[in-house]
Amino acid sequence: MTDTATVRPARAAAITAWDLEADVVIAGYGVAGAAAAIEAARAGADVLVLERTGGWGGAASQAGGFIYLGGGTPLQRALGFDDTPENMEKFLLAALGPGVDRAKIHDYCQGSVAHYEWLVAQGVPFKEEFWGEPGWEPPHDEGLMYSGGENAAPFNELVPPAPRGHVPRMENKRTGAKGGGYMLMKPLTDTAESLGVRAEYDVRIQRLVIDDADRVVGIVAKRYGKPLTVRARRGVVLATGSFAYQQQMIESYAPRLIGRPGAAIEEHDGIGIRIAQALGADLAHMDATEVAFFGDPQRMARGILVNGRGQRYIAEDTYPGRIGQATLLQQDNQAFLVLDEESLEAADATETSTPFFRQPPTWVAETIEELETEMGLPAGALQTTVEVYNRHAKDGVDPLLGKKPEWVKPIGTPLAGYDLRGMTAGFTLGGLRTDLDSRVLHVSGEPIAGLYAAGRCTSGICAGGYASGASLGDGSFYGRRAGQAAATGETPHSTAAAN
Amino acid sequence: MTDTATVRPARAAAITAWDLEADVVIAGYGVAGAAAAIEAARAGADVLVLERTGGWGGAASQAGGFIYLGGGTPLQRALGFDDTPENMEKFLLAALGPGVDRAKIHDYCQGSVAHYEWLVAQGVPFKEEFWGEPGWEPPHDEGLMYSGGENAAPFNELVPPAPRGHVPRMENKRTGAKGGGYMLMKPLTDTAESLGVRAEYDVRIQRLVIDDADRVVGIVAKRYGKPLTVRARRGVVLATGSFAYQQQMIESYAPRLIGRPGAAIEEHDGIGIRIAQALGADLAHMDATEVAFFGDPQRMARGILVNGRGQRYIAEDTYPGRIGQATLLQQDNQAFLVLDEESLEAADATETSTPFFRQPPTWVAETIEELETEMGLPAGALQTTVEVYNRHAKDGVDPLLGKKPEWVKPIGTPLAGYDLRGMTAGFTLGGLRTDLDSRVLHVSGEPIAGLYAAGRCTSGICAGGYASGASLGDGSFYGRRAGQAAATGETPHSTAAAN
Repeated sequence: MTDTATVRPARAAAITAWDLEADVVIAGYGVAGAAAAIEAARAGADVLVLERTGGWGGAASQAGGFIYLGGGTPLQRALGFDDTPENMEKFLLAALGPGVDRAKIHDYCQGSVAHYEWLVAQGVPFKEEFWGEPGWEPPHDEGLMYSGGENAAPFNELVPPAPRGHVPRMENKRTGAKGGGYMLMKPLTDTAESLGVRAEYDVRIQRLVIDDADRVVGIVAKRYGKPLTVRARRGVVLATGSFAYQQQMIESYAPRLIGRPGAAIEEHDGIGIRIAQALGADLAHMDATEVAFFGDPQRMARGILVNGRGQRYIAEDTYPGRIGQATLLQQDNQAFLVLDEESLEAADATETSTPFFRQPPTWVAETIEELETEMGLPAGALQTTVEVYNRHAKDGVDPLLGKKPEWVKPIGTPLAGYDLRGMTAGFTLGGLRTDLDSRVLHVSGEPIAGLYAAGRCTSGICAGGYASGASLGDGSFYGRRAGQAAATGETPHSTAAAN
Repeated sequence: MTDTATVRPARAAAITAWDLEADVVIAGYGVAGAAAAIEAARAGADVLVLERTGGWGGAASQAGGFIYLGGGTPLQRALGFDDTPENMEKFLLAALGPGVDRAKIHDYCQGSVAHYEWLVAQGVPFKEEFWGEPGWEPPHDEGLMYSGGENAAPFNELVPPAPRGHVPRMENKRTGAKGGGYMLMKPLTDTAESLGVRAEYDVRIQRLVIDDADRVVGIVAKRYGKPLTVRARRGVVLATGSFAYQQQMIESYAPRLIGRPGAAIEEHDGIGIRIAQALGADLAHMDATEVAFFGDPQRMARGILVNGRGQRYIAEDTYPGRIGQATLLQQDNQAFLVLDEESLEAADATETSTPFFRQPPTWVAETIEELETEMGLPAGALQTTVEVYNRHAKDGVDPLLGKKPEWVKPIGTPLAGYDLRGMTAGFTLGGLRTDLDSRVLHVSGEPIAGLYAAGRCTSGICAGGYASGASLGDGSFYGRRAGQAAATGETPHSTAAAN
């Protein structure tokens, strides 16, 4: 623990010389840090970004690139989708809860169209093409896709569905050259650089520096093992990502992810959260996790997913991240996929961005009874599940879980069975509690002077649920707010919302 | 927020006069506070307890009184039950996880027999009688009962079962005179008083006091609206209970409990957690909750519990708190109970400590199909569930969920159905991270000098799971440790375990 012991704040009075200085110092050059840097620089601040790795990008540049946006963005409108901030808000309240920060979701939805326009203005490209198939990502460079189960049960009955997963246009996706996350980060960091933002790489932040009035005025870091003191004349922005790779925090807060971190980078060690906690920062939703599921969405939509007791538990045509959460958190990570040969062939004839999920079946069988035995399920368990499914599928409906009629068809023979037990991974969604101007809130409810945060080191718009694009979405949205507030000291969005 | 803003620590240098002083100052006079007071006084300290209400007791004195103890206590042995610390540990690791504090569970199991003997020595009475029926509590003054599902699936196959719910002997339970929790607290507080422990009532703690080296040296409180400064010459022990009644913390950490707190008292407002967070204290398992379920255990064991899709999901003869957790956290709070008339009559002929759970059926029906329709389930959903259950019940087994043969019998007609949707309530289990000497750990991993905590303001032996008696158990066990460590400054149990 010699290393983490340093998370306690340093006193400015004890620092005799500053190695680096800026008006606004940002820790982390992922999407939240880049957005903060741009806005802080535009607001007239001299901006310095401290990045732990050898270059900009963070987890964002490794990501598929979804940005969750809506309310009637130009891209949605160009592709014929009606959306309103109100419908977006209704969906997010239903899908990301319980316990969501309602003020933050309202704010995010109201500002979503403007945020899309801002991204475009920074040079982020979106192609006017919609991908409507079930899947994790579009297979090519399509710009818009459902990414949260908006068009599936139970949400499609609650709110008019609209796709809100906006993906920056990828270059040569098929050859793996540049993913959507890179195509988001490249223009943002180019813009930051053009605005004079400086970046220092291979810098590991260690602790915050506070003055005699407990205001945050800098960071103590290390570069190549040597201490580095960095003064922040106006404010510090934490944008250091999740705690998916901090073992003790995972055990204490999100233990179902033990041994299965994913969709994050190993630099996500929770340091930004811990150095702010050392100042009394409050936390929220530390147990919340995104959960990826390694099942092919086209196959899942055409089959039935059953748990370790052979029971269906979720509409198979929904957002696969919802399937992942339901499987890991509510079904003890037990899942089997069952579909008939004809459906399997139909699924595999479709395009996918995740061909590696299309493994051969674990079992093939001539009857459900045979498959049930192969899966080790009690006699009758799977047979009756298929019986009830087929009984209603003959009429094209799924009253048990509301799978859409287009995917509902009686299951015939021969059959393929997939063992998907344990096939989940995830990253953490909880973190520092912040207000609408991205000020880090003390456990007293008051902001901590001089300290701002955004991205996955904060608790953003998600509580227990998730939609793809929520992280790059709230990270960029509240990253901008952090940059503005740190540069100007103005906090126009938080008048009545700090508590 | 004018009130909570005061959770920031005060500086001792700014306090000109102390209203009260003691070697060890304990906040909260529930089970953890009483145990701490006794041990601190025995170690030679002058002890002062600050209690928010008008008298001792806390949530403990309202509770049924289970104390989770084992490893071969004299009571277990007298009643013919074999148990070992190793089996107790195996069970708790399986039942209270994932993510449990393994060092704490090991320590607790190793010390359990001695802790039982300590309780007896303080005057806590246990009657040598075992109650073996499913239920929440014994109906009379029996001293021992299964209280965590030790004798039910899946644990009965993993570890030799032993009952570990030790209940202090109640006086006139049937007339409601004195419950088990009262019979625990009365001898503990009598003992404390005989040792010279002082108590001040109607005192609301507000913030901690730290000296120039950041050591905790006191508490600022309020009594009847007026400030009260209390100096702690050796240490402060926080024993203020859960955060079940702090709305913002529930929303941020345990949102499934929104609107359904229970088995706690409204004084449980998280204040002890928040004033320690303001010093940089670390947290753990803030999402973890005990969940009570308002179904009659005798009826449940004889019937089948199904979720909102008509599917069974848990062995109905297990600890009802496990049923509560499974229902609220994994089944969206949806549950129905189905049993036939004969089983209902058999259940209701048994004694129970919770007669108010024995309401008339929501529905009565001649056939499962009719009941299925009444419950609003899709055609076939409940019928096939009963079909599979009965198919195996004819042979006296339950391969789906492992209900014990003594409770397995085909379901006949006529039928009773109970709507148990939403019938849960709970209290929080997460809180301050502490070591084996009950020192509050800073987020750096180091103890916070002068600060100790125990009971439900800490994260104890539970992570996600629960067993009745775990709270009074770890509260009293680590309350003692807190008192010893605060009084003596010695921390013999934490040499290698602080991190």
